[in-house]
Amino acid sequence: MKIKRARLLSGFLKKPPGTAPGTLPEEASQDFHPTTAQLIRYDDAQLNETGYENAQALATDLPRDLSEGRGKNDVEWLNIDGLQNIETIKQVSAHYRLNYLAMEDVFNLHHRPKAEIIDDTLFLIMRMPILRGDELDNEQVSLFLKDGQLVTFQEQRGDSFGPVRERLRNGGKRIRFLSADYLAYTLIDSIVDGVFPVLDYFDGQLVSLEECVMEAPEKDVLKDVYQMKRSLRSLRQSIWPMREVLQTILFEKLDTQVSFFSDSTQPYLRDCYDHLVQIIDILETMQERSSSLIDLYMSSVSNRMNEVMKVLTIIATIFIPLGFIAGLYGMNFDPDVSPYNMPELSWYYGYPIAIGLMLFIAVGLVAYFWKKGWLGKS
Amino acid sequence: MKIKRARLLSGFLKKPPGTAPGTLPEEASQDFHPTTAQLIRYDDAQLNETGYENAQALATDLPRDLSEGRGKNDVEWLNIDGLQNIETIKQVSAHYRLNYLAMEDVFNLHHRPKAEIIDDTLFLIMRMPILRGDELDNEQVSLFLKDGQLVTFQEQRGDSFGPVRERLRNGGKRIRFLSADYLAYTLIDSIVDGVFPVLDYFDGQLVSLEECVMEAPEKDVLKDVYQMKRSLRSLRQSIWPMREVLQTILFEKLDTQVSFFSDSTQPYLRDCYDHLVQIIDILETMQERSSSLIDLYMSSVSNRMNEVMKVLTIIATIFIPLGFIAGLYGMNFDPDVSPYNMPELSWYYGYPIAIGLMLFIAVGLVAYFWKKGWLGKS
Amino acid sequence: MKIKRARLLSGFLKKPPGTAPGTLPEEASQDFHPTTAQLIRYDDAQLNETGYENAQALATDLPRDLSEGRGKNDVEWLNIDGLQNIETIKQVSAHYRLNYLAMEDVFNLHHRPKAEIIDDTLFLIMRMPILRGDELDNEQVSLFLKDGQLVTFQEQRGDSFGPVRERLRNGGKRIRFLSADYLAYTLIDSIVDGVFPVLDYFDGQLVSLEECVMEAPEKDVLKDVYQMKRSLRSLRQSIWPMREVLQTILFEKLDTQVSFFSDSTQPYLRDCYDHLVQIIDILETMQERSSSLIDLYMSSVSNRMNEVMKVLTIIATIFIPLGFIAGLYGMNFDPDVSPYNMPELSWYYGYPIAIGLMLFIAVGLVAYFWKKGWLGKS
Amino acid sequence: MKIKRARLLSGFLKKPPGTAPGTLPEEASQDFHPTTAQLIRYDDAQLNETGYENAQALATDLPRDLSEGRGKNDVEWLNIDGLQNIETIKQVSAHYRLNYLAMEDVFNLHHRPKAEIIDDTLFLIMRMPILRGDELDNEQVSLFLKDGQLVTFQEQRGDSFGPVRERLRNGGKRIRFLSADYLAYTLIDSIVDGVFPVLDYFDGQLVSLEECVMEAPEKDVLKDVYQMKRSLRSLRQSIWPMREVLQTILFEKLDTQVSFFSDSTQPYLRDCYDHLVQIIDILETMQERSSSLIDLYMSSVSNRMNEVMKVLTIIATIFIPLGFIAGLYGMNFDPDVSPYNMPELSWYYGYPIAIGLMLFIAVGLVAYFWKKGWLGKS
Amino acid sequence: MKIKRARLLSGFLKKPPGTAPGTLPEEASQDFHPTTAQLIRYDDAQLNETGYENAQALATDLPRDLSEGRGKNDVEWLNIDGLQNIETIKQVSAHYRLNYLAMEDVFNLHHRPKAEIIDDTLFLIMRMPILRGDELDNEQVSLFLKDGQLVTFQEQRGDSFGPVRERLRNGGKRIRFLSADYLAYTLIDSIVDGVFPVLDYFDGQLVSLEECVMEAPEKDVLKDVYQMKRSLRSLRQSIWPMREVLQTILFEKLDTQVSFFSDSTQPYLRDCYDHLVQIIDILETMQERSSSLIDLYMSSVSNRMNEVMKVLTIIATIFIPLGFIAGLYGMNFDPDVSPYNMPELSWYYGYPIAIGLMLFIAVGLVAYFWKKGWLGKS
Repeated sequence: MKIKRARLLSGFLKKPPGTAPGTLPEEASQDFHPTTAQLIRYDDAQLNETGYENAQALATDLPRDLSEGRGKNDVEWLNIDGLQNIETIKQVSAHYRLNYLAMEDVFNLHHRPKAEIIDDTLFLIMRMPILRGDELDNEQVSLFLKDGQLVTFQEQRGDSFGPVRERLRNGGKRIRFLSADYLAYTLIDSIVDGVFPVLDYFDGQLVSLEECVMEAPEKDVLKDVYQMKRSLRSLRQSIWPMREVLQTILFEKLDTQVSFFSDSTQPYLRDCYDHLVQIIDILETMQERSSSLIDLYMSSVSNRMNEVMKVLTIIATIFIPLGFIAGLYGMNFDPDVSPYNMPELSWYYGYPIAIGLMLFIAVGLVAYFWKKGWLGKS
Repeated sequence: MKIKRARLLSGFLKKPPGTAPGTLPEEASQDFHPTTAQLIRYDDAQLNETGYENAQALATDLPRDLSEGRGKNDVEWLNIDGLQNIETIKQVSAHYRLNYLAMEDVFNLHHRPKAEIIDDTLFLIMRMPILRGDELDNEQVSLFLKDGQLVTFQEQRGDSFGPVRERLRNGGKRIRFLSADYLAYTLIDSIVDGVFPVLDYFDGQLVSLEECVMEAPEKDVLKDVYQMKRSLRSLRQSIWPMREVLQTILFEKLDTQVSFFSDSTQPYLRDCYDHLVQIIDILETMQERSSSLIDLYMSSVSNRMNEVMKVLTIIATIFIPLGFIAGLYGMNFDPDVSPYNMPELSWYYGYPIAIGLMLFIAVGLVAYFWKKGWLGKS
Repeated sequence: MKIKRARLLSGFLKKPPGTAPGTLPEEASQDFHPTTAQLIRYDDAQLNETGYENAQALATDLPRDLSEGRGKNDVEWLNIDGLQNIETIKQVSAHYRLNYLAMEDVFNLHHRPKAEIIDDTLFLIMRMPILRGDELDNEQVSLFLKDGQLVTFQEQRGDSFGPVRERLRNGGKRIRFLSADYLAYTLIDSIVDGVFPVLDYFDGQLVSLEECVMEAPEKDVLKDVYQMKRSLRSLRQSIWPMREVLQTILFEKLDTQVSFFSDSTQPYLRDCYDHLVQIIDILETMQERSSSLIDLYMSSVSNRMNEVMKVLTIIATIFIPLGFIAGLYGMNFDPDVSPYNMPELSWYYGYPIAIGLMLFIAVGLVAYFWKKGWLGKS
Repeated sequence: MKIKRARLLSGFLKKPPGTAPGTLPEEASQDFHPTTAQLIRYDDAQLNETGYENAQALATDLPRDLSEGRGKNDVEWLNIDGLQNIETIKQVSAHYRLNYLAMEDVFNLHHRPKAEIIDDTLFLIMRMPILRGDELDNEQVSLFLKDGQLVTFQEQRGDSFGPVRERLRNGGKRIRFLSADYLAYTLIDSIVDGVFPVLDYFDGQLVSLEECVMEAPEKDVLKDVYQMKRSLRSLRQSIWPMREVLQTILFEKLDTQVSFFSDSTQPYLRDCYDHLVQIIDILETMQERSSSLIDLYMSSVSNRMNEVMKVLTIIATIFIPLGFIAGLYGMNFDPDVSPYNMPELSWYYGYPIAIGLMLFIAVGLVAYFWKKGWLGKS
Repeated sequence: MKIKRARLLSGFLKKPPGTAPGTLPEEASQDFHPTTAQLIRYDDAQLNETGYENAQALATDLPRDLSEGRGKNDVEWLNIDGLQNIETIKQVSAHYRLNYLAMEDVFNLHHRPKAEIIDDTLFLIMRMPILRGDELDNEQVSLFLKDGQLVTFQEQRGDSFGPVRERLRNGGKRIRFLSADYLAYTLIDSIVDGVFPVLDYFDGQLVSLEECVMEAPEKDVLKDVYQMKRSLRSLRQSIWPMREVLQTILFEKLDTQVSFFSDSTQPYLRDCYDHLVQIIDILETMQERSSSLIDLYMSSVSNRMNEVMKVLTIIATIFIPLGFIAGLYGMNFDPDVSPYNMPELSWYYGYPIAIGLMLFIAVGLVAYFWKKGWLGKS
């Protein structure tokens, strides 16, 4: 499993220090994807959906059509994927009168999740963790909510909002009767619930790491554990501030008279907040588990090492004395010179006695080791 | 000791991201047990108890009987074990007008303990740690309390509520004179006190792990310690939020005018809260102990390793020089060629002198090691 | 140093889960000691002291005498040691109208220190750490304070209250002029100050452990360190909540109109609180010290191991090449067959040259090791 | 990468303990750089800029010119680089009536960032981390803001304010229309955004350290990791209190009626605060990563060590038994004396059998090691 | 560097548990130094200074002179060094009507820093870290401040107050015009600023420890690191509560109507508080550094060990196979019996071939090790 490096390491802030605040990028960074868009407008009775396959189409449509013929209770959701066509996005921003400081944050793809109220608009930045194959991506989603209108910006196509669109299209559901704040909640809820499959994936990885470490720790496992720790840390770092975001909009900590979420939407938000808290709980457990893995790996390695060393010890300590005896009787002292010079060599049972001595020593040492418990499993 | 894996690792959330909130599962997950139920209705004078051995019976009885003929001060407790028969449970929920968001949480078997007030109902989710043989199970118990009525949902039959039912049946006790809030307290208290036997079990395990680590650490002990750490972590994770739950209902932090627990029940709840705090205290101590165990194990292993290594060292360092001397006099230099070529071999006391030299070296080394303290115990 | 295991590990709660609250034990647990009692009644002018050597005596005296003839400003202190005679204690409790929930806590010998106000009574549970020989005991002391009357329950005879009784008996002291709240303060103060000798004892143990670890770490030292850590943890666990207790009664956090401690007693209580904070400070330092000890031990052991290994290394690396040379010239190639077959064996100075070569290698290796600094101390 | 030692280690406080507060240094410390200055005065219509290449010029100009002819809405920014010419700085301080306690802090180059209101002046101390080549410098910047006037003191020339000056010079920008508080914000923002390149640099260092540790850990890597940890710690230590500073001026925690930052500047400050929080987030992640590096290094080293040891083990354990057999048949027992004395030596296939035995043992051991998995990669 | 053991380890509390509060010691502890005193009385116009070289002189002077002839705006500062002459100190305490509970704290030389208001007196206990040669002393300083009078108690002569006295003596300074609270501030400031030289000393020690650990770690370095950690911990433990003290008197958290520090002294106190916070910052950094040192030491030691082991490995693994070959051809199989018995011995090039084989093996192994990188530096 890998994390896109760009997410973690570089490009914290693209604009050079000292540039004026609210400056939008002049040209698209290479992280930006081509812009496409999708406009959905609905009330309880009907739903219109327009897709814009490229920025051109959106730009053409923009001055003419967007809010034209919008009914009083219509909910309008413009979703933009990809930030490459900056000019078009500026037009959108002008059309909806989105704050230019907020727009700067939209283009800064490494922003911390936050909630802010600017005049009559609620501005949220969220992070949407998504698994693309083996890679954990961590897309930024920005939401602007103001009376009946919702504008969302995503980094690229492909999101967790598919089922929401399905529910919108199938009329007669609660989502069609309620207002834009409920739609905003639904999107937030999709983002939050979308973390669970990611957790599931990580959990599977952790389980197989645990098995690997306990059974047959390979040298590279530790790198994987290190990667895992880093992924979890990075995931937690994007989820933790989302908790603050939800707390803010839930407990109306924003110093404002306007209430963006109606009383009927509040319980749903609380539910969503509960899920987020549970996600953080699970993440912390996973972090602890991955930390424990390092201890376990270390002990596993040292256990294997000990086993290896013990075999050496036992074989060496048994054969070294034996080898000495063999060497002893390989000496060339001249037995003819004196009766003291290695008379054993001429004994009738000399060789059997020597062999016997060796056997005795070997058995004695094995018995000693056995008693000490060094021949056991561990 | 094992923890049911399903508890920890998978199925955090069954419903796919993006489904509408309050959606009950269409079909029973395989974690769900068959539904049975038990209805108890009592006042200080009399008690009626009806058991439903399967969902059928409950469904049949439901429209006709449940609240029929209920006296004004009667306390009614419907306890449902097993969530398999979703349709029947939906009927129950409709009968008691239970909130559909709450009902979704009831079916999500991995919910964090929480307390919520929905209109005139107090909704609690608790976790009931139970030992089934060697396995720690961590069942979810949901409580709905509203004027005189208490509805509880459990995952399966078998709970800590047996003695409560006994006390109910034996009239003349305090529990029969007091209202439904006291019954709710009694159930919470049973859950909390039911943790103590679990702690006792873990404590016994810890003690035997400690003994094992200190006396004769086997290779697999560390896995057990790891398992233990994980069990304790998981236990703590379900108990910690129950503390918040009790704080909430105790200090009436819920922003509501209704008081669900009467003044006479409050002291009992406080007592229960004290026990929970004590449980967390004990759990933390156990967690520290299991962490220390790893250190202890590591040092125990390295101590044993050192002992093994020292024996090798001593035997090797003694015999290597001796072996060298033996090898020396095994050389085949031709003494006939010159008087310098190994004249020792022809000395009268050549062999005894060589043996003596070896003895001297061996004794010298042993003395040196003795002085260094390497022959001691540690 | 040992801690009574019963204190730490078992019997967290004697009563089975689900029993009614306020249920006193039916029969005495084996942890309970025989009941004795002592009644002291005094004002500034005179003091009466009655000792009851067994529960019988107290039971006999109880209905007749206890509060009879008590003057208006008399302070009455009934101290009960040992909880074995449950019936008698129930009589006492009835006589003084002590709350039955509180009485349940009195019998639960593992209760966390706490302060509670029940009607007109202040109920405190404290822990009194006492050294009995080498064992740290951690007795539970319960106090009931209500206008002019103080009832205390201890686990067994032998406490830190001796000097207080002395001061009471010697009239003319401040303690005789002030009210029951001052007496209660005095007892609390005695408990708190009684921790200092325990700290002193632990400190002495720590110092000798430190010396042992630094000088000559034996294998069992680590077990002692582990024991020490556990004792300190357990001590801290009983003292930490006593800080909360004192905070509660000091800053009158109890939501009550009644003030149990008069303004003149408050400064003394604050002083006592200061001491408790200092005790916790010292305990934390000790805990850090004992944690550091493990690091130190590990490095001490690995240092010794290294020393051992180095000797092996040096002796082995010197003698292995020498042994090889000796082996070389022990080969039996036939010099008669060809002039290439070991002509050295027939050289005139063959043997001296071989010896010289060995010496040269040995000296060279020693010099190399010397240069590398491996022959130094560390 | 190095950190200027003076920053970290010495000269915490230059003045001797006990000197009167507000005492300015009598003579310039050697840390002080020569004083130069730059005066910018502007309104929306025009901008005057005067550079003073040395303290002399500033001193000459000072009484005559500084606030002369200043228009009512003019913003005046005097920036002083280098504190060597104390006398001149005292004159400046007198001219602008800057508080003498604050001036003492200006000269104490190791001050913690702080925000203080003294009468009608807002006094800020900030730290500006700057990379000078490979060295992390951590300059102190002091700001005095009072109605329309901004005085800044820096340690030396070279700062992050270049782009701000550019924006001032190019008229028609927002910065020219707004008041001195916006200028102050712009400077703070420049300092904060100037941290990102430093983070980028550290991140690059961390990545190459990680690669080095994982691939081929050299002995000196750990020193670099240690240096890195220290740099990050020191960086965090100067940035953390800047967060407090921004919180203070943002949430107007200063107990004052005066509001130094207008409502229109507040959103910009909040944006700046967001960036600071993100910086701290990133720093913490980096700190964790550098801590993990040590674990990884240790395991990497021990893995390599194990590999080395295993080769020794295998070669030694194979050849030691073989060597013993060779030694055995090198013994000189006299076969003429008895048929028991090494008859093998005279067997027809004696030598091939011995060789065969050796081969058998060698192959057996290799097979045993293979089965144990000791010949694998790890 | 050493810390006086008495400071850390023993005598937490001299009085036995259970003694009445406010009991002054009957006889001087051996920690007490002989009493000397110094009385300074001044207003803006003049200053009187009287030194008492021993307790006798003070006692004689006491009833007659101390407050006699004191002008209305005079500031009176009585400083007492050494607490040995308890009787005299009691007289002083009576003369100034100092609270007897506070006086008990004055004699308890191990008291935690604290601030308390007793009637019209502000009572402070501070700790004054002082370096006496290589020893860190940690003297207790008690201050009583009440209208125009300041009484201070120190443990012995020698303090950080010298420059304050100088400033008092040299008239015309701010200190002479302001009231007793400013004098109290000046003393507190001297104590706080006096910590910086101590930090400087510790920092120097840390730097040399770091160098030692990185370059050539000796066995005893770890003990020094341990000592260092302990000193820093002890230093931090006395400084941390002083922060609380300053917070208390700065933010007037004391529940009192009286304000002991005038508005003009408040900014100075805040400055002093800033310094204290900086000291704690630096201390924490130092503590982290000393913790890291242990890791670094461990890795340094294991690196050296590895180097040693590798040399053994390489020499052993090269010579063991060679030795085996030598042993092989030292066998005595009888070549006369059969042509299979060691025909190599009779080959014409037998010996050169054997030598060649050995060389080949040696070179092969060296090449293998080289390729593996085991002959490199690390």
